[in-house]
Amino acid sequence: MSGTGESDKTVKVARGLEGIVAAATHIAEVDGERGKLTLRGYDISNLSGKVTFEEVAYLLWHGSLPTKAQYDELCTEMSRARELPPQALAALDTLSECAEGMHVLRMGASMLSIGDPTVDSLDIASNQVRSARLQAQIPAIVAHTYRMRKGLPIVHPKPEHGLAQGFLYMLEGEEPHPARVDGLNAYLVAVSEHGLNASTFTGRVVVATDSDLVSALTAAIGALKGPKHGGVPGPVLKMLEEIGEPENAEAYIRAEILAGRRIMGFGHRIYKVRDPRAELLGDAADKMAELTGDRHLLRLTRAVEETTVKVLAELKPGRDLYANVELFAALILHAVRVPSELFTPCFAIGRTAGWTAHMIEQMEDGKLIRPNSVYVGPRGMQWAPMAERG
Amino acid sequence: MSGTGESDKTVKVARGLEGIVAAATHIAEVDGERGKLTLRGYDISNLSGKVTFEEVAYLLWHGSLPTKAQYDELCTEMSRARELPPQALAALDTLSECAEGMHVLRMGASMLSIGDPTVDSLDIASNQVRSARLQAQIPAIVAHTYRMRKGLPIVHPKPEHGLAQGFLYMLEGEEPHPARVDGLNAYLVAVSEHGLNASTFTGRVVVATDSDLVSALTAAIGALKGPKHGGVPGPVLKMLEEIGEPENAEAYIRAEILAGRRIMGFGHRIYKVRDPRAELLGDAADKMAELTGDRHLLRLTRAVEETTVKVLAELKPGRDLYANVELFAALILHAVRVPSELFTPCFAIGRTAGWTAHMIEQMEDGKLIRPNSVYVGPRGMQWAPMAERG
Repeated sequence: MSGTGESDKTVKVARGLEGIVAAATHIAEVDGERGKLTLRGYDISNLSGKVTFEEVAYLLWHGSLPTKAQYDELCTEMSRARELPPQALAALDTLSECAEGMHVLRMGASMLSIGDPTVDSLDIASNQVRSARLQAQIPAIVAHTYRMRKGLPIVHPKPEHGLAQGFLYMLEGEEPHPARVDGLNAYLVAVSEHGLNASTFTGRVVVATDSDLVSALTAAIGALKGPKHGGVPGPVLKMLEEIGEPENAEAYIRAEILAGRRIMGFGHRIYKVRDPRAELLGDAADKMAELTGDRHLLRLTRAVEETTVKVLAELKPGRDLYANVELFAALILHAVRVPSELFTPCFAIGRTAGWTAHMIEQMEDGKLIRPNSVYVGPRGMQWAPMAERG
Repeated sequence: MSGTGESDKTVKVARGLEGIVAAATHIAEVDGERGKLTLRGYDISNLSGKVTFEEVAYLLWHGSLPTKAQYDELCTEMSRARELPPQALAALDTLSECAEGMHVLRMGASMLSIGDPTVDSLDIASNQVRSARLQAQIPAIVAHTYRMRKGLPIVHPKPEHGLAQGFLYMLEGEEPHPARVDGLNAYLVAVSEHGLNASTFTGRVVVATDSDLVSALTAAIGALKGPKHGGVPGPVLKMLEEIGEPENAEAYIRAEILAGRRIMGFGHRIYKVRDPRAELLGDAADKMAELTGDRHLLRLTRAVEETTVKVLAELKPGRDLYANVELFAALILHAVRVPSELFTPCFAIGRTAGWTAHMIEQMEDGKLIRPNSVYVGPRGMQWAPMAERG
């Protein structure tokens, strides 16, 4: 065996595709310099609190907010789809005993071609309807598998529920308080779409082979599962619990930064200012606190944010690390009383809207996504019998 | 509602990432100009016929062909993994009644985190072992779900079988003829790896978020499912059947080209000459024909190739369309007597080796893959109440 070890190292590799513009999109604009997120031309702060998650999903898929007739049709389609195919339910019941979190969500999502005879169709209108159906099914998978895993009977959906209300109902088996439904809606709207992140890009690459939305959604869930992308929202809550009271924040944060540790919930690849979604989720948490009277975690979160920004400016000047969506996502999901093990699956529920919108846009584009690689390994190797290797 | 319709159209979009070098790889070199495919420095024609598929898989994962001790360890690991977790088997039994082909393979692959408590580990050695286990499990999923769907009892694997032999045994419940095992090995080696194609790239994007091999493999299967990537091998066989005899080839091919239709099994995005894998698969089919005495399809395929190249050169000069892997893949898989509905799943069995090798390489790289997009949609939209939309 021999290898010349030659390699072409002169080719420029766009590692991580950083700085490469891979798509022109009509869906979202993320302005990291000014801290602005717009969905189909609407500043997200112009929508938040005024629309249900379903309205935003419709906007992402179709490019305009729904009229009353369009909205009613959408809700009918989604409520019909929310009752999962019995074979998927049976399979998930078996799998839930040995799988959880994003793993079981990936398994469940992979099954959603069942009962969909035209799943392989590349027709755009058919895939807009399919997106609505998948959007309705993902929360059902999250709620059912959570209960299955706890040994509880599943709660079948009620047709009159909207998505946020229906999710909490399927999770708990009781009508949720409207404030919690509003809080969850605000969360889902905030995370519904955020441009060409790694999971959305994954979904577009899959669809670009003329594969189907179920394959692409399953792939996107697998990408969101990665801690570098879907984050690790559990630790934010754990940190808040460790700090305990607002007056402890400064000493804790200072000690963590001086020890070289990362403060959870701060910093973002794109935003150089405060993440606009932090604002919306803070407002939503504020509204919930008015109703519940429980302001403890909200006060604590705001104190941690203020202190961290101040201490970072002092100890790491020029780093521009501000609160990201993760800090306030933990706050609002905790206030809605979503179990912390479902934080990333809930992110997936919201992001399914943006994912499927991008998949449809990619389907319209129709071009295979296929970058090149450069070979940098050995050359001229020669086979030898097994006994002569080593 | 209003939108200014402004958009930034001056940014250069690398549509389909064409011409962008997204990775430096040590795994494969595809030389489209000279029709050469090398795996870890070995010309594939230097390996084909001399090695089992498992040896090539080991080469792709580890960078060197296995010694006897390494090979024995690999085979032990793979034969242990081939017996699927009972929960996955039970779930697939339920799902097979309503799903098939690449859809059910995606479902099965998504379950392979079961029984793997360290699936989320980013340790390289652990993921080399995981790759071997997944490589052993994919053929079991394909064989079992095929039988389940036909209402046949599954055939549990025998520990002494290699991958190709074991796959045919689990598919049929009988010891396969060694010539078929050799033919299948040649096929699996030929399709084991082919650079940064769309499915391999998908797997790398998923792993780059620090997600796991099962999520990435499931995603890659979803991408291979797309007809633009995994191809449509069924139609090649159908075409050969329609032509029937070598002497009919010229009239058929001429009529198809003059009618503006594509000849199945010809042309490749990268190869400007004959696909080197066509050669290997042709040789393997030749060897099988010597043993079986059945040369009909082989003669027909060669006649169709010769005629098509000749007629294309005459009618479409300069197009450089040569036989691709699909033409000879159909020939060899048909000779091995793999049911045609399993052609693309068999492609996935072989490509799992290359996919997982790339995933491990990406894990070593450690950088998130996250391109940019440019927004080209409307701006300045304003929310209006539902009753005022339309």
